Amino acid sequence: MATMKEIAALSGVSVATVSHVLSGKKSVSPSTRERVLQSIGLTNYKLNTIAKSLRMNKTHIIGVLVEDICGLPVPEIVDGINQCLEESGYQVLLSNLRLLQKLYNQYEQLSQYTGIVNRGLQLLEDARVDGIIYVAMHDRRIDGIHQPVSIPLVYAYAESGDPANVSVTYDNENSAYEMTRLLIRQNHRQVALIAGHANTSAANRRLTGYRQAMDEAGLPVPPEYIRWGDWEYHSGVEQAGALLALALPPTAIFAMNDPMAAGCYAAIKRSGLRIPEDISVVGFDNREIASCLFPGLTTVALPNKEIGHTAAQQLLQRLDGLTIATPRTTLPCRIIRRDSTLPR
Amino acid sequence: MATMKEIAALSGVSVATVSHVLSGKKSVSPSTRERVLQSIGLTNYKLNTIAKSLRMNKTHIIGVLVEDICGLPVPEIVDGINQCLEESGYQVLLSNLRLLQKLYNQYEQLSQYTGIVNRGLQLLEDARVDGIIYVAMHDRRIDGIHQPVSIPLVYAYAESGDPANVSVTYDNENSAYEMTRLLIRQNHRQVALIAGHANTSAANRRLTGYRQAMDEAGLPVPPEYIRWGDWEYHSGVEQAGALLALALPPTAIFAMNDPMAAGCYAAIKRSGLRIPEDISVVGFDNREIASCLFPGLTTVALPNKEIGHTAAQQLLQRLDGLTIATPRTTLPCRIIRRDSTLPR
Repeated sequence: MATMKEIAALSGVSVATVSHVLSGKKSVSPSTRERVLQSIGLTNYKLNTIAKSLRMNKTHIIGVLVEDICGLPVPEIVDGINQCLEESGYQVLLSNLRLLQKLYNQYEQLSQYTGIVNRGLQLLEDARVDGIIYVAMHDRRIDGIHQPVSIPLVYAYAESGDPANVSVTYDNENSAYEMTRLLIRQNHRQVALIAGHANTSAANRRLTGYRQAMDEAGLPVPPEYIRWGDWEYHSGVEQAGALLALALPPTAIFAMNDPMAAGCYAAIKRSGLRIPEDISVVGFDNREIASCLFPGLTTVALPNKEIGHTAAQQLLQRLDGLTIATPRTTLPCRIIRRDSTLPR
Repeated sequence: MATMKEIAALSGVSVATVSHVLSGKKSVSPSTRERVLQSIGLTNYKLNTIAKSLRMNKTHIIGVLVEDICGLPVPEIVDGINQCLEESGYQVLLSNLRLLQKLYNQYEQLSQYTGIVNRGLQLLEDARVDGIIYVAMHDRRIDGIHQPVSIPLVYAYAESGDPANVSVTYDNENSAYEMTRLLIRQNHRQVALIAGHANTSAANRRLTGYRQAMDEAGLPVPPEYIRWGDWEYHSGVEQAGALLALALPPTAIFAMNDPMAAGCYAAIKRSGLRIPEDISVVGFDNREIASCLFPGLTTVALPNKEIGHTAAQQLLQRLDGLTIATPRTTLPCRIIRRDSTLPR
């Protein structure tokens, strides 16, 4: 290495001696060997590990690059990845980009953080990982990320803009369709929706699923039944308040996440109405709140752990040289029924 | 290295040529150099990075070893660590032990997982990190972990059994004392406690703080006012039900975490009583539920992000060769007042 001369100087030995220590070809006295290894900052054990990984050209370490470890689904996705890779004898190194802190709600401007992502990929490549799993914090289409040349990259909780790339995410549209169907089967005909941010892919896909179920059932969707919130509790309070003030208020409200559904609870209780006797409420996400609200909230559970597990499986298949037949996987969600709905 | 001969064979060149490529001492044709580097699995860039880190004997990478990324405080602690280290130009590699999955509620038997922890430490040492932060998932005393010889280790969200080790955690006892004082200042004289698992350090420290506040105010604590839950929602429902059935029910309930407080809400509402008009409820943790319950729950916010940030700062001080004057840091918590209490 470019540093062999420096290591020699540092150890007070010749470059040849350093070379002998490293190659193991000629014998060197234990104390000299120790001095050289100390100069390099390596223990015998580490040297053997590096030697082994060079020999196999594999480290059996997978890099996981997460957009933000504080993003709602991220810890569970990472857990699923870890579980799969542990079972397969791989180790995991994770790097956290902290995009939630840096670029909250600006996901359209991907170009702004491409540099951060690419530095994160480089850190993991430098750690000589065999492959990388990129974990997004919002389900969406991702473009503009530098694809590592020599190692595979798999996307979790998002789709790559390039359809050839392997990605694993969940089914927003069908989940919202099924949840709306559940309310319709309970004879609700006035079903209102509190959506998340209009510019997010998740909100638009869930809206499509809701509309499809309403259309198929021949139920009208008056424009005032579609309310735009911002994913936060207070927008649920506000939009539910607006729905309750309508001349023909809904008999059921589908909030696109659990905090907005909790906001509906507050607005409904303040107005003196009861859940579910007077009005049904459902949510999305199955966060801790859903089981802690009174009555328990019926909601949609995301397959976060399965997303991580599947992404890791597909990465391992790529490492085995297999082609992934269908690069885009969309996993189903699961409706968790609690006590917040009642048939009309 | 022990593999130099193999690299030479793989590249179809002599060992001397491999040595020349690595040392940069003699010129080698670009195509031969490329072939050798390919055999080693290194790009020029990576070689320079490794060379640089060998030269400085620092990688400017900090390892973070978390007991379980799905543990409640862990993502925020990691965020605090990342923030501090980013500001200081360090990068972070994280490794997740998944102990929540493997050993839930068996923290007394640390010996059972010492092997897992030590393998985790080794993985990070092999990645040549400059130092390691160990992030626990339950506040407690940690013993029996192998201390790396050549790099510093700092504990976050727990205390090391060895008082010389640097650790940063939060103040359970005083937080519970302050929360109880808040209720007493509101003229509550019958203040009951729903505790977590009896064998956890957090539960016992919070109990001590509660008792101290009650004793100082000269208020009696009948044994039936101390209820033992298991940190889960349903134990809150159950224990609050038992408290409401007493001949002299409490006017305020202090649940040792927010899910158990949410369980109190359910039991109280079912019994037809109102929060806070008829009974006050407070929690601990300031989870998302606390702001989503109706009425909003007064609770204790843990300094998770600060714990991470402080642990990282102290690790950097250690790397700068400074001694940490007081190795054990206990950060204060903050009471978040919402609408679940009312003066008598």
